[in-house]
Amino acid sequence: MSIPIKLDTSYLAQEVTPEEVYSWQAHVDFCHEMLHTRSGAGSDFLGWVEPKIMMPAAEVDRISQVAARLRAGSDVLVVIGIGGSYLGARAVIEAIGGPDKDRIIFAGQNISAHYHKELLSKLEGKRIAINIISKSGTTTEPAIAFRLLRNYLEEKAGKEKAAKLIAATTDAKKGALRNLAVEQGYETFVVPDDVGGRYSVLSAVGLLPIAYAGIDIKALLESAAKCAEELKTADLKANPAYYYAVLRNLLYNKGKGIEILASFEPRLHYITEWWKQLFGESEGKENIGIFPASVDFTTDLHSMGQWIQEGRRSIFETFIDIEGGEPDLIIPNELNDADGLNYLAGKQVHEVNQEAYRATALAHREGGVPNSSIVLPKLDEETLGAMLYFFEKACAISGYLLRVNPFNQPGVEAYKGHMFALLGKPGFEKQTEEIKKRLQIG
Amino acid sequence: MSIPIKLDTSYLAQEVTPEEVYSWQAHVDFCHEMLHTRSGAGSDFLGWVEPKIMMPAAEVDRISQVAARLRAGSDVLVVIGIGGSYLGARAVIEAIGGPDKDRIIFAGQNISAHYHKELLSKLEGKRIAINIISKSGTTTEPAIAFRLLRNYLEEKAGKEKAAKLIAATTDAKKGALRNLAVEQGYETFVVPDDVGGRYSVLSAVGLLPIAYAGIDIKALLESAAKCAEELKTADLKANPAYYYAVLRNLLYNKGKGIEILASFEPRLHYITEWWKQLFGESEGKENIGIFPASVDFTTDLHSMGQWIQEGRRSIFETFIDIEGGEPDLIIPNELNDADGLNYLAGKQVHEVNQEAYRATALAHREGGVPNSSIVLPKLDEETLGAMLYFFEKACAISGYLLRVNPFNQPGVEAYKGHMFALLGKPGFEKQTEEIKKRLQIG
Repeated sequence: MSIPIKLDTSYLAQEVTPEEVYSWQAHVDFCHEMLHTRSGAGSDFLGWVEPKIMMPAAEVDRISQVAARLRAGSDVLVVIGIGGSYLGARAVIEAIGGPDKDRIIFAGQNISAHYHKELLSKLEGKRIAINIISKSGTTTEPAIAFRLLRNYLEEKAGKEKAAKLIAATTDAKKGALRNLAVEQGYETFVVPDDVGGRYSVLSAVGLLPIAYAGIDIKALLESAAKCAEELKTADLKANPAYYYAVLRNLLYNKGKGIEILASFEPRLHYITEWWKQLFGESEGKENIGIFPASVDFTTDLHSMGQWIQEGRRSIFETFIDIEGGEPDLIIPNELNDADGLNYLAGKQVHEVNQEAYRATALAHREGGVPNSSIVLPKLDEETLGAMLYFFEKACAISGYLLRVNPFNQPGVEAYKGHMFALLGKPGFEKQTEEIKKRLQIG
Repeated sequence: MSIPIKLDTSYLAQEVTPEEVYSWQAHVDFCHEMLHTRSGAGSDFLGWVEPKIMMPAAEVDRISQVAARLRAGSDVLVVIGIGGSYLGARAVIEAIGGPDKDRIIFAGQNISAHYHKELLSKLEGKRIAINIISKSGTTTEPAIAFRLLRNYLEEKAGKEKAAKLIAATTDAKKGALRNLAVEQGYETFVVPDDVGGRYSVLSAVGLLPIAYAGIDIKALLESAAKCAEELKTADLKANPAYYYAVLRNLLYNKGKGIEILASFEPRLHYITEWWKQLFGESEGKENIGIFPASVDFTTDLHSMGQWIQEGRRSIFETFIDIEGGEPDLIIPNELNDADGLNYLAGKQVHEVNQEAYRATALAHREGGVPNSSIVLPKLDEETLGAMLYFFEKACAISGYLLRVNPFNQPGVEAYKGHMFALLGKPGFEKQTEEIKKRLQIG
């Protein structure tokens, strides 16, 4: 493989052998065919399969230019979006960094009065730009945040200048936000019709904030596209994303209902959050699905470690291991060695972290937790772009193997309907009466 | 009840009836007796049961005084600790705030070179104080961070002045950190012998950082002590903590192997992390245990919401609902109502959040997720102090009902042994050879 990712499955033995995985080849061929001929469930949402077609070079250039313009005109970019409209960007920005990463604030992901008050007071005195990301423009959380922040920006900068500092990423043609953007003259980008939120990180949805941070979005996309080519084979011996999809299904069938994604790098925290949405929303339906959980090690070895080591044997674990590329930092020697740490003196901190990873993977395997590792040589645009695509492709095939539609999310409407009814949204009058009866309130 | 907490169990019906819960009274009586006569497993670790005995008033005063002195002498307090040595303090500080909450940085919870490099560069130019929290003083993560940060502080302030800016919370008599503190003349506080890390938030372990943030630690402790009195009854009709302990066990026995703790306030995020350690480490052993997971709503309704609504019916949910006390923030009206949000104009943001909570609880119940709610009238020292104790007491009884020792954590040693062997720690020479053979490395 020429993708910069290795899948290490040596600690799966006993529960899952390579022969078992390979025995699924015919199933995988079938699912692969469905995906690539667009004949399976959810086939209207496969725009992500070809990153370069989803994002033509000219559009990538335009994103870079607008990001540069916004950066020049602001101290802070407030990215307003929820779910797939922020998780990918946040994951990439926290993982790779970029010279302007600390100038980005994510908002519109909750309805906490406390959060919004703090946010407004934190922005005081700063020149802000806004990237509002919403396909419809009417999703409650981002709509509330956008009202508050647009008011704030227009008060500070005036309506006309404010319009130049707002970029809207929204539906190509219709919807509340598209209409507003046209009316106000905002710069606009497109949420593709054929890409669901959780698969949208490499579209304008993710790329504009990522570009503002100063990350090389061309390199990110280039690597994803290369990975897409490499993962076009259905052969389980050549496609680690499919291998991962099969081993998850095998373990699930053997009673391992929870998958824990674990990394040893705190800056991968939001990658694990992004992964939880990707797999959870794709597979959790029809009363089935692997429950996706995540931990940040070594931190959480001191909280969830006990459970993982000795709790109910209902779990399997997937590690993300970053082999190198970490900054130099040496553990200093101390004369009296009060803390008994001199045996580590002169060692690189990253070296110690790597041994912690190896020790944990082995201990958990010995404790009855089958685990595998996604190994990256280092953390940068190239490896991360490949990993994002790796997980997307794996998730699509894993969902098909589970026999669900990995591209819909019918269950997210249930609480929304109730909420609109409780809040008295126009059009929900009948439900309002009905729900108030059920809750026995006035 | 006069504790400021209500347990709302109305959405448990079908899966768990009050009669079923009450039928466990004899079991509960037995476990309650074990706990209060200190005759059960782990009875050497019950210091937390009486908060006022654990923390005499004079010691609380001393903590406040030292916190004030450190605050006066520094811009930033770096709290170095891992697991129970930071989660409680971080949870309380993020939840309640306090005027100096942004002056606290938590460190020593990972072995990431990248994290430590960023930390050191962020501290540049700031006057720091350090609270190192470690019973032994030799735990790898905090020991590494303390070496790096103590070096940094001593370089900036000189050795003598540095010693006055370091407070060590450690074993009362023995251990590496105690010895160092005595030698260097650090201010010291005690990690009680009879309180495990995950139960230590209301000891000096948690209280010194909490006091530095400017939170009223007396009020916090007072409320916990009052809650302790109220929860001294074994009667399931009068003790909501025990009711909660029983319903968890009932649901677990009925195949609900995962508990999801959910709040609608982002600043409760670390309360849910603290809770995961408390219950996960207490119950996850002997190949059994409820898997503790957490979500921040409404944020995660847009990622994990689909799974919870329609995934495998292996979960139950516990909400933390904050009824009021949020700051005033009104959703503004907009002339053209482009986003269709005017039906909310004039409403308090918190009001909308509350309806989101009610809608979610109902929708999840209807989708097959039994749920209950821990309801606080608002978020402050009084309610939070009570809730911390509520969970601690519930966890102890829940663990006894599961027939495990809720106060040990034998499984956390497994990876440590391997790690020390891989790193060549003195005393682990035999294991080093053995593990290298197993891993087939030089």
